[in-house]
Amino acid sequence: MKRLFEVDPWLVATHHLDKIDRRLQESITAVGNGYMGLRGNFEEGYSGDSLQGTYLGGVWFPDKTRVGWWKIGYPEYFGKVINAPSFLGIGITVNGEQVDLATSRYRDFYLALDLHQGLLTRRFVYIGDGVEVQFEFARFLSQTIKEAAFVSVKATVLRGHAAMTFDASLDGQVTNEDSNYDERFWVPLHEDAAAKSIQLQTKPNPYGVPQFTVLLKQQLLVNDQPVNGQVATTSGQLHEQVTVQLAEGQSYQLEKDAIVVTSRDVAPAAQATAAAQLMKQVSAQSFAAHLAAHTARWDQRWAKSDVVIEGDPAAQQGIRFNIAQLFMTYYGEDKRLNIGPKGFTGEKYGGATYWDTEAFIVPMYLAVTPPEVTRALLQYRHDQLPGAFHNARQQGLAGALYPMVTFNGIECHNEWEITFEEIHRNAAIAFAIYQYTAYTGDESYVKHDGLEVLVGIARFWADRVHFSQRTQQYMIHGVTGPNEYENNVNNNWYTNTMAVWELQYTLERLAKGDADIVAALGVTDQEKQHWQAIIDHMYYPTDDQLGIFVQQDNFLDKDLRSASTIPADQRPINQHWSWDRILRSPFIKQADVLQGLYFLNDRFTKAEKERNFDFYEPLTVHESSLSPSIHAVLAAELGKIDKATELYARTARLDLDDYNHDTQDGLHITSMSGSWLAIVQGFAGMRYDHDQLRFHPQLPKNWRRYQFKLNYRGCLLAVDVGQKVNVSLMAGPALDIIIDGKPVHLEVEDGHA
Amino acid sequence: MKRLFEVDPWLVATHHLDKIDRRLQESITAVGNGYMGLRGNFEEGYSGDSLQGTYLGGVWFPDKTRVGWWKIGYPEYFGKVINAPSFLGIGITVNGEQVDLATSRYRDFYLALDLHQGLLTRRFVYIGDGVEVQFEFARFLSQTIKEAAFVSVKATVLRGHAAMTFDASLDGQVTNEDSNYDERFWVPLHEDAAAKSIQLQTKPNPYGVPQFTVLLKQQLLVNDQPVNGQVATTSGQLHEQVTVQLAEGQSYQLEKDAIVVTSRDVAPAAQATAAAQLMKQVSAQSFAAHLAAHTARWDQRWAKSDVVIEGDPAAQQGIRFNIAQLFMTYYGEDKRLNIGPKGFTGEKYGGATYWDTEAFIVPMYLAVTPPEVTRALLQYRHDQLPGAFHNARQQGLAGALYPMVTFNGIECHNEWEITFEEIHRNAAIAFAIYQYTAYTGDESYVKHDGLEVLVGIARFWADRVHFSQRTQQYMIHGVTGPNEYENNVNNNWYTNTMAVWELQYTLERLAKGDADIVAALGVTDQEKQHWQAIIDHMYYPTDDQLGIFVQQDNFLDKDLRSASTIPADQRPINQHWSWDRILRSPFIKQADVLQGLYFLNDRFTKAEKERNFDFYEPLTVHESSLSPSIHAVLAAELGKIDKATELYARTARLDLDDYNHDTQDGLHITSMSGSWLAIVQGFAGMRYDHDQLRFHPQLPKNWRRYQFKLNYRGCLLAVDVGQKVNVSLMAGPALDIIIDGKPVHLEVEDGHA
Repeated sequence: MKRLFEVDPWLVATHHLDKIDRRLQESITAVGNGYMGLRGNFEEGYSGDSLQGTYLGGVWFPDKTRVGWWKIGYPEYFGKVINAPSFLGIGITVNGEQVDLATSRYRDFYLALDLHQGLLTRRFVYIGDGVEVQFEFARFLSQTIKEAAFVSVKATVLRGHAAMTFDASLDGQVTNEDSNYDERFWVPLHEDAAAKSIQLQTKPNPYGVPQFTVLLKQQLLVNDQPVNGQVATTSGQLHEQVTVQLAEGQSYQLEKDAIVVTSRDVAPAAQATAAAQLMKQVSAQSFAAHLAAHTARWDQRWAKSDVVIEGDPAAQQGIRFNIAQLFMTYYGEDKRLNIGPKGFTGEKYGGATYWDTEAFIVPMYLAVTPPEVTRALLQYRHDQLPGAFHNARQQGLAGALYPMVTFNGIECHNEWEITFEEIHRNAAIAFAIYQYTAYTGDESYVKHDGLEVLVGIARFWADRVHFSQRTQQYMIHGVTGPNEYENNVNNNWYTNTMAVWELQYTLERLAKGDADIVAALGVTDQEKQHWQAIIDHMYYPTDDQLGIFVQQDNFLDKDLRSASTIPADQRPINQHWSWDRILRSPFIKQADVLQGLYFLNDRFTKAEKERNFDFYEPLTVHESSLSPSIHAVLAAELGKIDKATELYARTARLDLDDYNHDTQDGLHITSMSGSWLAIVQGFAGMRYDHDQLRFHPQLPKNWRRYQFKLNYRGCLLAVDVGQKVNVSLMAGPALDIIIDGKPVHLEVEDGHA
Repeated sequence: MKRLFEVDPWLVATHHLDKIDRRLQESITAVGNGYMGLRGNFEEGYSGDSLQGTYLGGVWFPDKTRVGWWKIGYPEYFGKVINAPSFLGIGITVNGEQVDLATSRYRDFYLALDLHQGLLTRRFVYIGDGVEVQFEFARFLSQTIKEAAFVSVKATVLRGHAAMTFDASLDGQVTNEDSNYDERFWVPLHEDAAAKSIQLQTKPNPYGVPQFTVLLKQQLLVNDQPVNGQVATTSGQLHEQVTVQLAEGQSYQLEKDAIVVTSRDVAPAAQATAAAQLMKQVSAQSFAAHLAAHTARWDQRWAKSDVVIEGDPAAQQGIRFNIAQLFMTYYGEDKRLNIGPKGFTGEKYGGATYWDTEAFIVPMYLAVTPPEVTRALLQYRHDQLPGAFHNARQQGLAGALYPMVTFNGIECHNEWEITFEEIHRNAAIAFAIYQYTAYTGDESYVKHDGLEVLVGIARFWADRVHFSQRTQQYMIHGVTGPNEYENNVNNNWYTNTMAVWELQYTLERLAKGDADIVAALGVTDQEKQHWQAIIDHMYYPTDDQLGIFVQQDNFLDKDLRSASTIPADQRPINQHWSWDRILRSPFIKQADVLQGLYFLNDRFTKAEKERNFDFYEPLTVHESSLSPSIHAVLAAELGKIDKATELYARTARLDLDDYNHDTQDGLHITSMSGSWLAIVQGFAGMRYDHDQLRFHPQLPKNWRRYQFKLNYRGCLLAVDVGQKVNVSLMAGPALDIIIDGKPVHLEVEDGHA
């Protein structure tokens, strides 16, 4: 655990430039607007250790799969999140000296991310030879003009005289740090000194993946008036320099606006015109006015989604940080996008779509964003069905296999134990359809497009199981469960359970599907009988003596001991132990059996949940960011409120406190919803199955109260849990809910429970 | 199956240039001399599909490990077999036209590898415009001057007039085809036109692996007299051209001698002098005299090792091909070398040392080569103990873990399921010590150096097992057995069995070890007790109903069906099925349980062997070249003589008939001993455990007789199995053996059984 920023309800701020953990600071101060984003790199550059990163949603490169030993079924390419050309740079010299916080003298450093609207500010006093200059920076990526970035820097001479240059740049000479092959992914096409723009294209590829072309354009302003600096270009780069002389006490404020258009929206030949038009729109209003419009959008979002925690400022900061970072990553504006594990904050993992979206994001977004946002996430998967069919065919199997990692629906990850085996992802895709339908009551998706997805997945399961003659049961061999610290196991309880759930749900929904799609799908009676046979005769590893579901065959043969026996200096084990040791160990990376109890919550007794929780939680090292939240929800349900609170902290402040020692690579965007789930499904005990909204609220010991909003079937509810529980209907038709098992009728203005 | 060459007892010859399967022809016509070797590439070049390959023993490059996702414990580099600078080239033009069998007209093609001494000859008639020239080529790599290669070409004008150029080259501009990254591994240092030499060095590496420097030198001769052509050099290349005018009926014979010295033997600065000296030695005798001396060495080898089969010419050719190729790869001259899976015939796999040596080569070499050859193979492992300690430490384990793939003792393969898990290799290393000791009766190795190896391995096993509280037994989880079509399994019967065998053998030998080494090893009583506890309480998966040892936990839950149910067009499955499908299937790549029954042959009853053979053999697809021989030996022991004969053919003619559709990449050198094992241990039933040489000879139905030699404890035996069995002592002291259970006393000249 490492806490670099001060605790504050709406700010993530620090008075300390941490040169050792600069990358961690950069990750946490990343900002984005769903269209693009960047790490908290410094405008003026920084020669110390740093991870430079700017990312554009949906702009990627298919990088040839390189493995020591090719295995049939491997995808041809890995979908690499590429570092995009940067619009951030404003190099600064004072009396000929480069301002560089890695080497310059400075004082009064302050860096703050305002969570309310993703505004990053920074200030410090530069100390030169006989001169002191205070610098104040601000940046945000607009929510109203998605292609626009606003940066400003104000210099005030506190002492002496300062001859200063500001070198505002556009930089396409960027690389990926983890590319492993020192490759560049961008080819410069054109630099236009007059238009102050550069255009670049991703390298060609042999896989039929479109090349992306981007155009970056900048303008400089002083006092809201455009100024023209000295422009120079080199291949893939543009520099615009302005020079000022400032006497003691004088200030100078420079604004840099940037426009980024990509071939995802604008054809390459039209990009210059489009960017000029957008820049005109930008020029029509001041920085302050743009920031105000941007903030207004955020106000609307927070009105539906803010969570208030009283009595625990760190917990408060954690949940707001997570909500803000999630919304900076995705708010449903572009249906071709999804939510990558690092969002716009790092280049690791590759791909932009993981099962995380369905398993962890969907249940939160359903409640805090308009329904069409979640619907867009579902539609995304339907749109990628051809890729899922392709993936299954690659493995010689029928039906649809959704990818573990993808940009375009086609699997792009090359570890066989993941790509070929972590097939439980398919169940999560289906479960999101169930969740959407159960939460919203909107059956239009599952009756048509969703049904195509469900049947595709069902056909995959039906081909992937095998019938064991010996036991006369169906089995699923050779899988990796959610607990990726086990590979190629047989009969992962979660996978078997969810596969059967999916077949059941598909059969059930098929009977109610739209006639045209049911006809087109052509599921035969024989297929249905086969599915039913699998449902009826699936094998599930269990242990009667312990009264638990067994994670997989042979799991109980392990040297079972609590994760608390691992010496502290060997945690996280994935940074200290060789892979074979991790695999042999009994330690669980993330909820596996418990993930199933979480998903299919209404199917299991409290005693079953308790026995399994008590058995598995002590074995769990939570080295996946996705783990603590699920445990927190279950712990709360089981009345283990202290455990739930501990796990809440871990999920809510995973990045702020760098629990897993890896936030320097980027934030854990897709697990950020976990803190919300821990509060709403955990402490407040919210459930929505069987068309019935229910709560069973509890209050963590050190919290005074917590409040959150829910958007449910056209209603906006406010839930307030303190010494008393108060659920009120802010908007929408009357609603009958259940609190602590008792029916409560809610109407607007009359919603006290 | 694809048979490109004619069946002949001592020749591998063809009258057909196969342009489609040129690579396969090249593999099969490779020649080597233990120091270096090359594929059957054409001297004059060939513009069609071809795999150019020259290899120098022990010359390699540590290529950075590149994986999609790094796992702790991965080796830093992969040991790549690099294509070495070539000394073969003699480009030819006739009346200005390039002679190139891919495009030129020709007739009467003939290509022959004489197995007796590894002499490759070729002839064809080139048909040009108004001209026909017959070419006759010969090449061999000397067994008497290991650095020397001899090539000759004779041109005879059959029709018309021929203005001819011969361009004899040294070529360092070579690449590896499978390098995956289009890299060159050689940096040219120097070309010397006067000395007719080129010198190159392998690229630098950051792993502390020495860079290799090689120097190649050539001379040309006509009628045994040196001639000097026109020499030109470019970076890393040297060309020497001679021009002749030949009238119809005239002949011209050009000899090219090449010397190759490497920094393994000669410091870079001394290489030019050393090569000049060696060339002087070469010049002192004619081509014919060198060939005669070379052939005399081969005569000596064959006198101890030839196997004669009457009645089955294909079987006869197969065994001689295998023996010749093995001896061209390794005959113990250089103790720093080992036997790579492709020898000098291809670049695949990487590394030069696999468990194949101990498991498959040692038992043959013990019997057909002088004992010091096998002893050198054992010593090689002792010399690499530091690497084995390193490998175990990399995985966080005690003791010694011999590498799966290596040049220098350090593991260099990067698939976790192999590197980290295929640990049964450690047992084979120990078993070779047992085999050497049991066969030769020489205890000097196992008492000292060998004991260090045994204890190192025992300490590894003792740390690698775990105790399962639930079953109160020791287990070994997370392994890959010899059957690599299963990964990360629990309790592989073979691995558990061999681990316990190794612990037992180590305890037994420790009690008899040399005092100094026993003291130095410092095995504590506590350690010995722990080893004994593992021996006493190891868990072995078995099935009482079937009466078999179970390959691994859960194996019987599979969809068990015979390999004969696999459609022919899906064989080999590793070229048609995705990896997950292979893993889930019940099909076995190579003997696994049966490998254990083969090794520990005297510990199991015939009924046990029979039940396991009958269960496992039908599941086995033999897609490892190492598989059929073990099955052949067991089948013969069980009296399944037809099965043994079928499997013999598969092992003996694996490459000649391209059973596994992959010989184009190179020969399966390390499995070539399998054909010898199938005859000697299989058909002849030779056993040597308990200090007693025994035979139980059988004759395959279609064979008239077979004869082989054995070098056993100072005796040379000749075994002749026809309608009668005749074992005679050719040399050495009197010997008591057992034939068909009956004692037989052998003396020289009086050895008829």
